[in-house]
Amino acid sequence: MSYSALTQHFQQQYHLQHIAAMCGWDQATMMPAGGNQARSEAMSTLAVLSHQQLQAPQLAQWFSAAQAESLTPEQQVSLAVMQRQWRDATMLPSDLVGAFSLAGSRCEHAWRSLRPANDWAGFLPLFEEVLNLSRQVAAARSEALGLSYYDSLLEQFEPGMRSATLDPLFNDVKQWLPGLITQVQAKQSAEQVQLPQGPFATSHQKALGLEVMKLLGFDFNHGRLDVSVHPFCGGVSEDVRLTTRYDENDVAQALMGVIHETGHARYEQSLPAQWRSLPVGQARSMGIHESQSLFFEMQLARHPAFIAKLAPLLSHHFGEQTAFSSDNLAKLYTRVQPGLIRVDADELTYPAHVMLRYEIERDLIEGKLQAKDLPERWDNLMQQYLGLSTKGNYKDGCMQDIHWTDGSFGYFPSYTLGALYAAQQAKAIQTELGTFDHLISTDLSSIFSWLQRNIWQHASLLETDALITQACGQPLNACAFKLHLEQRYLGA
Amino acid sequence: MSYSALTQHFQQQYHLQHIAAMCGWDQATMMPAGGNQARSEAMSTLAVLSHQQLQAPQLAQWFSAAQAESLTPEQQVSLAVMQRQWRDATMLPSDLVGAFSLAGSRCEHAWRSLRPANDWAGFLPLFEEVLNLSRQVAAARSEALGLSYYDSLLEQFEPGMRSATLDPLFNDVKQWLPGLITQVQAKQSAEQVQLPQGPFATSHQKALGLEVMKLLGFDFNHGRLDVSVHPFCGGVSEDVRLTTRYDENDVAQALMGVIHETGHARYEQSLPAQWRSLPVGQARSMGIHESQSLFFEMQLARHPAFIAKLAPLLSHHFGEQTAFSSDNLAKLYTRVQPGLIRVDADELTYPAHVMLRYEIERDLIEGKLQAKDLPERWDNLMQQYLGLSTKGNYKDGCMQDIHWTDGSFGYFPSYTLGALYAAQQAKAIQTELGTFDHLISTDLSSIFSWLQRNIWQHASLLETDALITQACGQPLNACAFKLHLEQRYLGA
Ligand SMILES: [Zn+2]
Ligand SMILES: [Zn+2]
Repeated sequence: MSYSALTQHFQQQYHLQHIAAMCGWDQATMMPAGGNQARSEAMSTLAVLSHQQLQAPQLAQWFSAAQAESLTPEQQVSLAVMQRQWRDATMLPSDLVGAFSLAGSRCEHAWRSLRPANDWAGFLPLFEEVLNLSRQVAAARSEALGLSYYDSLLEQFEPGMRSATLDPLFNDVKQWLPGLITQVQAKQSAEQVQLPQGPFATSHQKALGLEVMKLLGFDFNHGRLDVSVHPFCGGVSEDVRLTTRYDENDVAQALMGVIHETGHARYEQSLPAQWRSLPVGQARSMGIHESQSLFFEMQLARHPAFIAKLAPLLSHHFGEQTAFSSDNLAKLYTRVQPGLIRVDADELTYPAHVMLRYEIERDLIEGKLQAKDLPERWDNLMQQYLGLSTKGNYKDGCMQDIHWTDGSFGYFPSYTLGALYAAQQAKAIQTELGTFDHLISTDLSSIFSWLQRNIWQHASLLETDALITQACGQPLNACAFKLHLEQRYLGA
Repeated sequence: MSYSALTQHFQQQYHLQHIAAMCGWDQATMMPAGGNQARSEAMSTLAVLSHQQLQAPQLAQWFSAAQAESLTPEQQVSLAVMQRQWRDATMLPSDLVGAFSLAGSRCEHAWRSLRPANDWAGFLPLFEEVLNLSRQVAAARSEALGLSYYDSLLEQFEPGMRSATLDPLFNDVKQWLPGLITQVQAKQSAEQVQLPQGPFATSHQKALGLEVMKLLGFDFNHGRLDVSVHPFCGGVSEDVRLTTRYDENDVAQALMGVIHETGHARYEQSLPAQWRSLPVGQARSMGIHESQSLFFEMQLARHPAFIAKLAPLLSHHFGEQTAFSSDNLAKLYTRVQPGLIRVDADELTYPAHVMLRYEIERDLIEGKLQAKDLPERWDNLMQQYLGLSTKGNYKDGCMQDIHWTDGSFGYFPSYTLGALYAAQQAKAIQTELGTFDHLISTDLSSIFSWLQRNIWQHASLLETDALITQACGQPLNACAFKLHLEQRYLGA
């Protein structure tokens, strides 16, 4: 059976991804700085071997033989997803894979100290190398897939998504959003909001985070919470590794961060066990992944009914404060204020951060923007979209994100796609099961069950369009997102 | 250049060992229990791929071509050590390597909960599988090397060492030791010793451990300290991962454990950088490795001059106690008391624990003892060597050690070899540089420099015999060890 030979081969591939994910997690959370050179080299070798394993000569024959075998519909999908992963591997030469992994590790690690030092000059040559190799990857993928350079990278994170689909969608949001932000800021300028008074000890913030993860159904037998400079959700479904960072003056940052990553984690932990070690058992796309984290962080955690659950936990861990009243927290967590930092952005200004990055990374990859001109372009767009200057402020400007340091060009659109998908899911749930007001206060788990039935259990068994249309009754669109923001920020 | 092709190939092998070491460390320190099945499978796949990489078909030709190339003497040694590692790999079929890795991971992980539960019946089938696969490994190695089953495993940890050398050496120690123990216990029965009063908070014990690691020259830019059930020194030279465990009622256990592992760590961290990623740049043998940890733990840390340095640190971290006087600590840390647990054993009774294990594991591997008969045999030997019963007490008897759970048969002799080597080194240093009394109190670093010059920098460039003879003026023997114990425990 060629199909079963293939599944065995791809299980090994899954094992190597497991190993790489754990070593990547360790690099970001545990590794002493002096270990980085050796780690980068080791991970580059692993990437090359893993890539070679995926290019084993017998695969081509197995794939054609498997087509003729009698397979269930699900096995046919599984076969197609394996084939896509194989095709992705075979279009890149092994030495490019190794060089790309090494340059990304090096740049990312250097970024950890160069960013706080605001050292653009030190960062630029490392970044240029990553960009250069990313363009080589794009060139190879573009050639093989018949897509533009940028679309060929986007395809890695959002299979089937194209700039031609993103552009009208994003333009629609981009034109509508500034007006809404102005209206909301005008409305909020009359509101009184109290800031909780710190310091908030890291150990208490951690205890709070763990409690909220439990409330959200995180399975601690298959995962853990740690600290990293740039929070992420890593590891594998069987052992999900969340990270956050703590600011002793601000309790919301880590709290909302943990909730966001818990959304990613529940998706990973709930992928169907019987498909777990095969490509078809993986998360559908990064847009769907971000739809889960943003569903948790924005749709759920900023909802007044959920905030009513958070308020007593905050008082419990940090003592009574009037700022911890549900009313005040609800205002605070929906406060709109354009700022420099994407990960600290409110729900309304967040899309502006994404669109800025989308436009810039597309031009970088298409060769229309040079790495050295990045800070100026960044500053221009920040002025235009949010009225803020980042001149000379690289660390809060173009050096703020981890994504480009390891060559993850094409990822950023996933955040806004995720926000749109999350709003569509929230709308569908409320149509089907009742309002969040009611569900959150009486039966939070019914929401998770809906996600389990409609998103999590399908892994990559459905194409993104089919998954969303089946779950929400409509394909991808911005209506629910716009409606959600208008209702939450202006309405009722 | 075939030699340079070989070095590149073996550097990749080193990278895979790095990856495996880090995932192994994570499994013992960080991983939630539910992640173990997936981790074991992933590491088994990595072991198989790593093994296949080492068996690449071009290697045979490279090795024969490299013999004819003009190489420096050091490159010739490097070539020979690569060839030994290659020979070790090629004598085992890949499926045995995978099965052995998987069974070891499973058994070790189960042991973590079965041991505290004293569950021999639960442990036995897992252990039988590991033993069975270990005997298959021994059979394959024995066939290829022309050695007995047990010697073929010993060779993995102590290249060149044979039972025929161990037996007379160990018998000598075994006959001489009981008399000494009796004499020392008689002498110590008249002594007053105070036990420090706990509890000793884990956080303070950790702070103390870090301070002592610093005093001993551990490089925190290339390593860290964590917690595991069974302490070990893992990771790679560039990133050494020490572990310990804390007992809030006993400060000595973690303290002495950390000092022991720091000895391993300094050896690893000080291996010559220019050979680091090649087999010849690795530690010479496990006996030499244990000689460094036991040098730190026994020769240094139990020396009155070093205890005089520890005493104020203990008072600093846990408050003044009369039990923290140098005099009392010196008595306490050299107190002789036969006990059930090897890792808690004093310097004098430790060899009895090793010899018991050596005799048992040899019989297990040679097929002269069945796994099911292990507890009875263990009990008999404990009665005979230390006068203690372990009947029904598996957790403090034959289930106490991690080594056999992952199939590390042949390792135990390294501990006593290490103790003998350490005593030889201590004697050589004092002959060359002055007494430990003087060196420890005035110039601790001169001791480390001697180890650097005579042991650490040579990595595997010298055979064990040559290394020891060159460093100490004599080949392996028990004289220095016996003299050291007589002087410390009876003398002056
Ligand atoms: Zn996210
Ligand atoms: Zn040791």
